[in-house]
Amino acid sequence: MKEQKPITIHTVQNGREHFGEYGSCRNLLEYLSKNTPFRLTALCGGKGVCGKCRITVVSGSPSAPTTEERKLILPEALERGVRLACLTVPESDLSIRLEGEKELFGNKEDRFGTPLPVDRSIHSVVVELPPPSLDDQRSDHTRLLSSPSLKGIEFPPALLKELPKVLREGNWTVALQVLDHQVLSFHSGSKLVDAYGVAVDIGTTTVAVYLFNLNTGEHLGTLSELNAQQVFGADVISRIQFAQEGLKNFKTLQEKILMQIDSMILHLAKINNLRSTTICLATIVGNPTMIHLALGLPPENIAQAPFIPVTTESLCLSTGELGLSLSPGGIVLIPPAVSAYVGSDILASVLASGMAEDADTTALLIDIGTNGEIVLNDNGHFIACSTAAGPAFEGAEISCGVGGIAGAINSVKPGKEIAFTTILERAPVGFCGAGIVDLLALLLEAGLVDETGRMLTREEAMHKHLSFASRLTAVEGEPAFELVPARESDTGLPLSLTQQDVREIQLAKAAIAAGIRTLLNRIELPYAQIQAFYLAGGFGNYLNPSSAIRIGLIPRELEGKIKSIGNAAGKGAALSLVSEKAYSLFRSIKDRTEYIELSSSPDFQELYIDEMMFPG
Amino acid sequence: MKEQKPITIHTVQNGREHFGEYGSCRNLLEYLSKNTPFRLTALCGGKGVCGKCRITVVSGSPSAPTTEERKLILPEALERGVRLACLTVPESDLSIRLEGEKELFGNKEDRFGTPLPVDRSIHSVVVELPPPSLDDQRSDHTRLLSSPSLKGIEFPPALLKELPKVLREGNWTVALQVLDHQVLSFHSGSKLVDAYGVAVDIGTTTVAVYLFNLNTGEHLGTLSELNAQQVFGADVISRIQFAQEGLKNFKTLQEKILMQIDSMILHLAKINNLRSTTICLATIVGNPTMIHLALGLPPENIAQAPFIPVTTESLCLSTGELGLSLSPGGIVLIPPAVSAYVGSDILASVLASGMAEDADTTALLIDIGTNGEIVLNDNGHFIACSTAAGPAFEGAEISCGVGGIAGAINSVKPGKEIAFTTILERAPVGFCGAGIVDLLALLLEAGLVDETGRMLTREEAMHKHLSFASRLTAVEGEPAFELVPARESDTGLPLSLTQQDVREIQLAKAAIAAGIRTLLNRIELPYAQIQAFYLAGGFGNYLNPSSAIRIGLIPRELEGKIKSIGNAAGKGAALSLVSEKAYSLFRSIKDRTEYIELSSSPDFQELYIDEMMFPG
Repeated sequence: MKEQKPITIHTVQNGREHFGEYGSCRNLLEYLSKNTPFRLTALCGGKGVCGKCRITVVSGSPSAPTTEERKLILPEALERGVRLACLTVPESDLSIRLEGEKELFGNKEDRFGTPLPVDRSIHSVVVELPPPSLDDQRSDHTRLLSSPSLKGIEFPPALLKELPKVLREGNWTVALQVLDHQVLSFHSGSKLVDAYGVAVDIGTTTVAVYLFNLNTGEHLGTLSELNAQQVFGADVISRIQFAQEGLKNFKTLQEKILMQIDSMILHLAKINNLRSTTICLATIVGNPTMIHLALGLPPENIAQAPFIPVTTESLCLSTGELGLSLSPGGIVLIPPAVSAYVGSDILASVLASGMAEDADTTALLIDIGTNGEIVLNDNGHFIACSTAAGPAFEGAEISCGVGGIAGAINSVKPGKEIAFTTILERAPVGFCGAGIVDLLALLLEAGLVDETGRMLTREEAMHKHLSFASRLTAVEGEPAFELVPARESDTGLPLSLTQQDVREIQLAKAAIAAGIRTLLNRIELPYAQIQAFYLAGGFGNYLNPSSAIRIGLIPRELEGKIKSIGNAAGKGAALSLVSEKAYSLFRSIKDRTEYIELSSSPDFQELYIDEMMFPG
Repeated sequence: MKEQKPITIHTVQNGREHFGEYGSCRNLLEYLSKNTPFRLTALCGGKGVCGKCRITVVSGSPSAPTTEERKLILPEALERGVRLACLTVPESDLSIRLEGEKELFGNKEDRFGTPLPVDRSIHSVVVELPPPSLDDQRSDHTRLLSSPSLKGIEFPPALLKELPKVLREGNWTVALQVLDHQVLSFHSGSKLVDAYGVAVDIGTTTVAVYLFNLNTGEHLGTLSELNAQQVFGADVISRIQFAQEGLKNFKTLQEKILMQIDSMILHLAKINNLRSTTICLATIVGNPTMIHLALGLPPENIAQAPFIPVTTESLCLSTGELGLSLSPGGIVLIPPAVSAYVGSDILASVLASGMAEDADTTALLIDIGTNGEIVLNDNGHFIACSTAAGPAFEGAEISCGVGGIAGAINSVKPGKEIAFTTILERAPVGFCGAGIVDLLALLLEAGLVDETGRMLTREEAMHKHLSFASRLTAVEGEPAFELVPARESDTGLPLSLTQQDVREIQLAKAAIAAGIRTLLNRIELPYAQIQAFYLAGGFGNYLNPSSAIRIGLIPRELEGKIKSIGNAAGKGAALSLVSEKAYSLFRSIKDRTEYIELSSSPDFQELYIDEMMFPG
């Protein structure tokens, strides 16, 4: 038998390249997940049915397209090399391209009003040391500490490893970055160099890393990727279950996310021409499950009543404890959380919204993801809850739902022909949350879905709205409204909203609306007194407020007060990275927040049933 | 082809057992070094010529003895199953036994005047917490910190991982060990448990771990093993060279020693029925190279002029930083050193000797290993130097030299027939340092070696000492004195002292004697004023002071003042483990020690040549 040369895969995404050996993977999806930092959405878990793990083969010989691929990919796209990673096997070295993630995630959320207000007391100290000789044999460490400019400043042992090299390369002159009274990083020579930091937002679906100059507050770049843990479960509960199946799984989840964050930091450093060791401070926010998994803390008690996290306290760790490629003397700040389902990401959003600095304005903040977290301020005091809304507004558990990816239908406008738009104006691939809300609002308005959520049959609808009624079909025996026919969609399949989809939305919106009312009832606050309604998270980016009000997700009384604040969690993490004051405020928000457990609130149960109906 | 069942090796040493798969090792020496915590001496590096990697095969089929083994092992021993690990391959599952290490290292050094004086402010705190409920969802961490008894006490994040289990298993009652204001360890329930600690002495040849009760000062056990790094070089310079050959080597050295220490701690915990997590404090001493390698600090500047260590400062590390199986909240103290060749082991010996507490007594301390480190006290001030004496007194570089192992000749007494003793009264296998000094003193006294170190030929010696002269032979063309004929030695080879051996001893003793004189000259102190002469280290255990004086290793003026203090480094490490005050004294000894670099001292060069002659 001739020995086979190993097959090499060259992967490019947004100019970021990776070379690897294909080895004995079953398909390109497995290869990408196991061997590269790149992640693809694969909602069906690689079964070849969801059509979401699309890649483009740029050169080389892949296996021939399967029947499933021919169903899910338009012929022109197949012609261009578009394939499903889960069904494709290389037959030679391949060069493949993935959709740029920045494009995928819309980009809106990346913008910061930079530079951010900086107040970390980071300063540089340049020290010139006498070189050692047989008459002066002090150790490198003793020599450095003997410098009068380092009096009272702590030099962490983790930096010792690099000390001999740094001192000798700089001919016994060294520049140190000092935060408060601790050296964070150092380098050879007398050139003053700024210190850098990263803010990290670990979402269940998406991980975002933001790079900042800690001296100027300037935002240098953002990288966001799908969370590498996704292959082990789409939501927090399934990840916790996976972790509980054994210590190996638990460790895998921690490794996956830390390696991903590390690789993202290295990439950001590289494209900004920074040595990763000049990055010396990090803040990491996320929901409590994501934070537990990243820190290697057992998450199981989060998933079962009475829902107790290991910690909600703010922590200050060394980079070594997490094995991140920052300066070995660097510090990782883990901001506090409130409870098992109201994490540092929500507090970061509150911080970013400005609610905490404006106690006089009564405001609500809501972040709709798999759970809907809601925070109400009340004269400088906060009340928070988390509703198990489910991931419907993220496009999951919706038959044609997708995340905020290119080609996702993000708005639907009524009219004779019904118009819609897609993200990046690509051919439509499915509905993202905003598109679903728009379409459902339109169907309610047209009477094709009634107050109880029942979708009319075509016959029943004929007298309500003739042109729309013609789109009423049936998918697997249940009523469905077809917005995009098969021939016009990029997947080659019709894009419809089904009766079941309407039910999912109905449950989700009821949970959120009831959560809002529970908080207000707690302090007997009428809707009218709410002065601002902040909508955090990607979902809010495209959401049409009037549609959200039409389906009863947001109370009508809040019309005109709604403000979408994008990825506020990331912004809050960034603020507390560059500003000591902001981080103090972060911690004080936590101290001032009261958590309401909805699962044991009789009030909530009643309101939930109430809110199940759609507004008339 | 039939699939082969993997071969299992069962290894026993001092009742400590290990099972492992042989795999694809080349021989049992490689297997033991790669897969087990046990170490064998293999001076020739596994080439089958030194005969020192002896094991006993208890059951199973090993390969047939090779010609080399038949040369190096007596037939009766071969019969008993004695083999050389480097030449033996298993042909079936084997059970093998190694010489007990405690026996090997003589045991004298293990004795402490226990209990040691304890003053660490370790105390236990028992906390009963209200269990969580849907009405009290505080995190485990917040719940614990809310206890009034933990006010002002720090709970290290490294303990969070275990917190949920510990709280729930103890039904929300937990006992914590607190040192100063920091929790070191904890366990479920209200039972008060003592805290334990280990003192570690990393020698180039031997690693010793001492287990203590930190509440009572009681010494619970000692384990000593050959340093697992030995296969990479016998002395510090060859280890540094190995480390310099590449990052992988450097990391291997660190891993080897940390894994060995960890496995020794686990073993001591097990035989004392302690969970390793109740061990929460460690002190680690050693020569600077050993400490650098254990901490992963680059050692190369230690090996080249002007001989600069990375650090000589005392360090306080977390157990996590070294990956040791102590309590995850435990602390590892690294006491300070003086210079590249006067390490924390020597300062620990000074501490153990009591010199620092008795400033009025002028005393010398000397530790003879590969280097001879010498410390002189002078009214509370110390002067130290290190002489590159070479390892002759450890039995290395001596043709029939061995360490202090069973069967080593440790004393030689003149008389008609020359009598000698061996360690544990085993059949003789070679000379340890004390035996070499005795024999050389005898030969000098008998005139068979002259003042210049020349060994007489048999013809020249005939008129000097007839019965001794008959033992003068030639080994590979050079004069040699045969003490034990081949038929009486356990190795089947004659045991002789050669002309070259005498030269090695001559250089070594000159270096040490000149070092002592250099220190005395520095403060113009005559020998007569020295009131005490402490001999630290294993070499001192068996050394006959009058022989040491006869060969000029120790000045005649010190006769009657010599005190062997055994493994003082280990004792000093133990004292500073159990006593805060002792650890302060340790650091103050460092601050009061002046180092004299002999390589640049013209004084020393001259004295070295002076001391080359043997006393007449």
